Amino acid sequence: MPTESQIISRLKNRVSIGDRVVLGIGDDAAVIKTEGPGDLIACCDLMVEGVHFRTEWTPPRLLGRKALAANLSDVAAMGGIPKFAMISIALPAKYSSEFVDDLFAGVFELANDSGVTIVGGDTSSSRDSLFIDISLIGECQSGKAVSRRCAMIGDRIYVSGSLGAAAMGLSLLEAGFRIEETQDTTDPRFRAVSKLLAPEPRLALGRALGESGLATAMIDISDGLSTDLWHILNESDVGAKIHASQIPVADCVSVAAGTTAVDPLSLALNGGEEYELLFTVRPDNHQQAAVLAQSAGARITEIGEIVAEKRLSLDRNGVIESVPALGYQHLV
Amino acid sequence: MPTESQIISRLKNRVSIGDRVVLGIGDDAAVIKTEGPGDLIACCDLMVEGVHFRTEWTPPRLLGRKALAANLSDVAAMGGIPKFAMISIALPAKYSSEFVDDLFAGVFELANDSGVTIVGGDTSSSRDSLFIDISLIGECQSGKAVSRRCAMIGDRIYVSGSLGAAAMGLSLLEAGFRIEETQDTTDPRFRAVSKLLAPEPRLALGRALGESGLATAMIDISDGLSTDLWHILNESDVGAKIHASQIPVADCVSVAAGTTAVDPLSLALNGGEEYELLFTVRPDNHQQAAVLAQSAGARITEIGEIVAEKRLSLDRNGVIESVPALGYQHLV
Repeated sequence: MPTESQIISRLKNRVSIGDRVVLGIGDDAAVIKTEGPGDLIACCDLMVEGVHFRTEWTPPRLLGRKALAANLSDVAAMGGIPKFAMISIALPAKYSSEFVDDLFAGVFELANDSGVTIVGGDTSSSRDSLFIDISLIGECQSGKAVSRRCAMIGDRIYVSGSLGAAAMGLSLLEAGFRIEETQDTTDPRFRAVSKLLAPEPRLALGRALGESGLATAMIDISDGLSTDLWHILNESDVGAKIHASQIPVADCVSVAAGTTAVDPLSLALNGGEEYELLFTVRPDNHQQAAVLAQSAGARITEIGEIVAEKRLSLDRNGVIESVPALGYQHLV
Repeated sequence: MPTESQIISRLKNRVSIGDRVVLGIGDDAAVIKTEGPGDLIACCDLMVEGVHFRTEWTPPRLLGRKALAANLSDVAAMGGIPKFAMISIALPAKYSSEFVDDLFAGVFELANDSGVTIVGGDTSSSRDSLFIDISLIGECQSGKAVSRRCAMIGDRIYVSGSLGAAAMGLSLLEAGFRIEETQDTTDPRFRAVSKLLAPEPRLALGRALGESGLATAMIDISDGLSTDLWHILNESDVGAKIHASQIPVADCVSVAAGTTAVDPLSLALNGGEEYELLFTVRPDNHQQAAVLAQSAGARITEIGEIVAEKRLSLDRNGVIESVPALGYQHLV
C-alpha cells in the first residue's frame, strides 16, 4: 500500500487545475474562485477507528467535536471562515444508539459554537471499524486565503498557544489514564489529554491573520511543528532557523514530564494533533501581529525566522542541529 | 445501532437551517445561497467495503468511477452542474499500489469526463475495510435547484433510461458471474453487471430539467423506484398512481430473467443503485419534457401521475396494488 504522501504527490501530478481553482490538492484546504465577492474554501478530514482514535479512551461527544475541529483548524489555517459541513459516518453494529447520539451531539455542539451549519451527509453500516469523514466549506475575501507557499526570507515564524500537550496526552492514554478519572481541570494529566481529545481550533486568529494580510504563509500543526514547518519550507522553497528556548512548551507537559522519561522539547517539536497555527510574518509587521493576536484572544510566540538556506536549524543553547521532517505517526 | 433513516430524521430535527441554506439534510444534496448569481449544491456519498461493494467482483477502476458517479447523480437530481470534488479514502494494507492507482484513475477519468476538478481529500490506513467518501460541490442558477418537495397533483411522473438491470447485475455477481468473463457488450449479463458497476449519471438531463424549470420534483433512483418515489410523495405530501405496463424494464433483465426465477417488474420496481432520474412535470408540459430529453440525449418514460390520496398505487393489468416503500438493502 502506498503511503499518504505518495498518494498525495501522485494526485498532485494527475490534477489539471481548473481556471477557478486558486489552490488545489496539497494545502490545508482548496481555494476556489466564485462569481461573487469572495472565494470558497473546501477541505475534508477523515478519522478512522484504530488509526486516529480509540473509542475505549475517547468519549463519543469529544470524538464528534474533534472530527469537526480538525476541519475547522484547516479553514483557520487558510485565514477563512467555516460555514457549511457534511458528515459521512460508517457505523459498526457494536455501537449503541446512545453512542451515536452523543457523537452527533458533539459535532452539532461545535458546529453551533463555530457558526457552521450541517447541511448533509451520508451514513452506512460498517463491518468492523468506525469511520468519520467531515467535509467543510468555508469562505474568505477574494484573494485573501493564506497558503503555505509564500514565506519569504527574513519573515518571523510564529506559533499560537503552546505545544507538546497532545503528544503527552497520547502517552498518558496509552499508559492507561482515562479522562473520566478526574474532574480537576488543573490536573496536568487532564489538561494534556483534553488538548488531544478536545482541541480548540484557532478560528478567530486564523481569520484575523487572513483578513489583515499579515501572514505570508500559514499551516495548522496536525503533523507536528517540525513536519508542518517543513511543509511551509518546501512549498515556499526556503529554510528556517528556530530557537529551542523560544518554543512554547505547554505547562502540563513540563509538569507531567517530571515523572516520566520524555523530553518536553521533543514532544513540542514532533508531537502531532496540536491544531495550533504556525505562520510567518514580515519582520516589519511584528507589532501588528502582536496586537492582532491579542484582539483575537490568542497567545502567539515568535520561534525563529525564515532563511535562504534550505534546511531547518534548531538552535539549542547555541548548538545548531538540523531537524528532519520526522512526520507524526498515527496509532497504526 | 440506529438505522440510516433514524439517523437522518434525528439529524433533521437537530439542524437549525441557516439563512443561506435553501435545502439542508434530507434531499439528494444541500442547496446554499451565495453572494454571486448562482446557488451552491453540496453532497457526499460514502462507499464501504462489504456494504456497498466487494473488491472480488468490482475492478478498482470501476470502483473509483462509481464512487464519484453516485455524487454526480445526486447533483444531476438537483438540476445542477458538478464542479469540484474531494476524496477521502481509508486503505487496508492488503491492497496494492496498482489497485490504488487504478481506483484513483477511475475517479479522475470520470471527473474529467464530467467537468469536475478534484480539489482535495484525505487518506488514511484502515485496519480492515476499504472506505471511500467523495464530497462534491456543484452549482445551479439561483433558485433553480429541484427538490423532492414540490410534486403537485396532476403532475406526470417520468423515469429516465430503463430499470432493473442493476439489481439483475447484483444477482449475477452473487451467483458467481464476473464482468471479466466476457467482452461481448451485447451479452445481457455483461449489460446488467455494467449497469451496477459502471452507472452513467444523467448529468445532461438533470441540468436541462433544472435550468428549464420543467421538473417540479426530482430524485435519483439509488434506493429503488418504489422507495425513491415514496421519498418524493412524502416530501411533497401527495400520492401517486403508476402503471406496471409503462415501467421501462431493461432489455437485459427480460432476457436474463428467462433463465431464472426473478420477476423483471419486481427488479425494476425495487432494485437500487440505478442512478436514473425520477421526476415530475406539470401535465401541460408533456411535450416540452419530451423535446428537452431528446436534446439531452436521454430516453424518458411516463409511468404515472401524482394524485391527492397519499398512497402509491400500482396498476397491474387493471388490478390495483398498494406499493410500500420496501427500501433497498445493501450487502449487509
